Amino acid sequence: RWFHLCKLPGRVMGIRLLRFTSVVIIVLLLVAGALTALLPTIKDDKLPNSRREPKTQTQPALDSFTLIMQTYNRTDLLLKLLNHYQAIPHLHKVIVVWNNIGEKTPEEMWNSLGPHPVPVVFKVQTVNRMRNRLQNFPDLETKAVLMMDDDTLVSAHDLAFAFSVWQQFPEHIVGFVPRKHISTPSGVYSYGSFELQSPGFGNGDQYSMVLIGAAFFHSGYLEDFQQQPEAVHALIDETQNCDDIAMNFLVAKHTGKPSGVFVKPVDIRNLEKDTNSGYSGMWHRAEHLLQRSYCVNKLVNIYDGMPLKYSNIMISQFGFPNYANHKNKM
Amino acid sequence: RWFHLCKLPGRVMGIRLLRFTSVVIIVLLLVAGALTALLPTIKDDKLPNSRREPKTQTQPALDSFTLIMQTYNRTDLLLKLLNHYQAIPHLHKVIVVWNNIGEKTPEEMWNSLGPHPVPVVFKVQTVNRMRNRLQNFPDLETKAVLMMDDDTLVSAHDLAFAFSVWQQFPEHIVGFVPRKHISTPSGVYSYGSFELQSPGFGNGDQYSMVLIGAAFFHSGYLEDFQQQPEAVHALIDETQNCDDIAMNFLVAKHTGKPSGVFVKPVDIRNLEKDTNSGYSGMWHRAEHLLQRSYCVNKLVNIYDGMPLKYSNIMISQFGFPNYANHKNKM
Repeated sequence: RWFHLCKLPGRVMGIRLLRFTSVVIIVLLLVAGALTALLPTIKDDKLPNSRREPKTQTQPALDSFTLIMQTYNRTDLLLKLLNHYQAIPHLHKVIVVWNNIGEKTPEEMWNSLGPHPVPVVFKVQTVNRMRNRLQNFPDLETKAVLMMDDDTLVSAHDLAFAFSVWQQFPEHIVGFVPRKHISTPSGVYSYGSFELQSPGFGNGDQYSMVLIGAAFFHSGYLEDFQQQPEAVHALIDETQNCDDIAMNFLVAKHTGKPSGVFVKPVDIRNLEKDTNSGYSGMWHRAEHLLQRSYCVNKLVNIYDGMPLKYSNIMISQFGFPNYANHKNKM
Repeated sequence: RWFHLCKLPGRVMGIRLLRFTSVVIIVLLLVAGALTALLPTIKDDKLPNSRREPKTQTQPALDSFTLIMQTYNRTDLLLKLLNHYQAIPHLHKVIVVWNNIGEKTPEEMWNSLGPHPVPVVFKVQTVNRMRNRLQNFPDLETKAVLMMDDDTLVSAHDLAFAFSVWQQFPEHIVGFVPRKHISTPSGVYSYGSFELQSPGFGNGDQYSMVLIGAAFFHSGYLEDFQQQPEAVHALIDETQNCDDIAMNFLVAKHTGKPSGVFVKPVDIRNLEKDTNSGYSGMWHRAEHLLQRSYCVNKLVNIYDGMPLKYSNIMISQFGFPNYANHKNKM
């Protein structure tokens, strides 16, 4: 072995080879040691603040969506809803817009109850504004946003289906709550739901808005919203209302078509009554609906026209929940 | 007067003026007579074979549709249905494809019972073929075709709504009867309706075809159909069936999307039982459904692939018939 090598011509060469070989071996050991040091450490799941990377984390595109949920004074509902929404298929990430100014977020508690299916980011706000949820958050990686009010529960089945519908209508607000405006002979607009007179285009009713508190829309519209005239932002701040009406105006102007596509929900619930906070939503204020009519007319002034368009398309899921839900007498 | 004129210098000039004036008067009278002769004559409405031009006859574009109804051995149903369909809003013209070879059409009776809201054209066929209705009729002036089986009654409300839906999805077959294919481990396809196993893409069922016996589609697809491989025409002739499956293959290939959009009908009826002819439709033949599975597989061979795509979108009319048909518990 070594002696065999030493017999090679030139004792000098033999010693050089020996040194060379030793150096190579030492270098290899150092490299191996370095590689070992670079391996990711296996964290103990019970450590606070640990977050294990979900195995299925892929580059999000049109195949997943980001849930944006703004919350004020209903942390108990928020946490209940987060447990539900974190497991919706195709969800990429949750962004919680924390409007409880000066109050600590439940992030620590959230992390201590991990692991979670998706990352949840708590965005602490400095002012309690309705339009905080319409910021163009840098955390957003998906084309699609699902926006939910912090007291609204929609079943996973409904959300999975509505997301697939959004993918076929990506420039629209695809959601579960339709509303409309009507015009009156005086030229003044009024806002309402189905109890309000139909606009009178043939049979049945029409809707001209889909509320963003339970809807999918393209994340690009958040940037658009930031670009809107200052008067629009001021109106929303003045009323602490109407951000959804403004978004419908924006989308209708952008597409020249009805802003929304209404998907009829099978299971949608308002959990307001279940909160311990005693806080009931803004829509209970006496002036809520009058404000919304006011907003419609203000926005028409700001945009110098009425861009909202009517639709009477109502989408349901074929064969679900009842596999024969499309059956007819024929 | 004349004497006054005669006093003008030159007696010759006065006579010339007189002649000139006379000639002008005579010419004017002749012109007036000619104009009177060119006026349109007012026709008596009770004359046989007279057709008064409907006042609202405008250049048809995307705003109206042509009804194509093929008929065989059910003239009583045909006439009952024509009375209903002739009054559907936005109907431009009716084309009756007369498959009763050698039998006189009811055109004389039809005309004697005029006036009618729209023109009806009876296209006499030389051979009783299922695919006769898919000819590119020169009488077609509209972009949209409504194709109806001669035993199917769909309410005007449903048709008006479905037409408005077609206008939003003009490259699709928009209709009332969804069907699907499923693939099996052996690679052989099978045809069926909702009682057949769902294709297994998430919740609920899917459809991959909308039958053309009660549907709107773009008239351009008739020309496309004529251009299809001879094997397709031969298949339809061999089975006297499957023309609608072939059309769905055609549309799916053309769009790369699901061929159909299903509109859930409120009021659709099969009048088959009501016929005096004793003739019951082709779909009562024992081999009808087996033939359709056979057709699916043959078409896959002919087109070297399966172009049909699944959809689970079911469209209904918002607020009709029940103005609160979208209301939820929330």
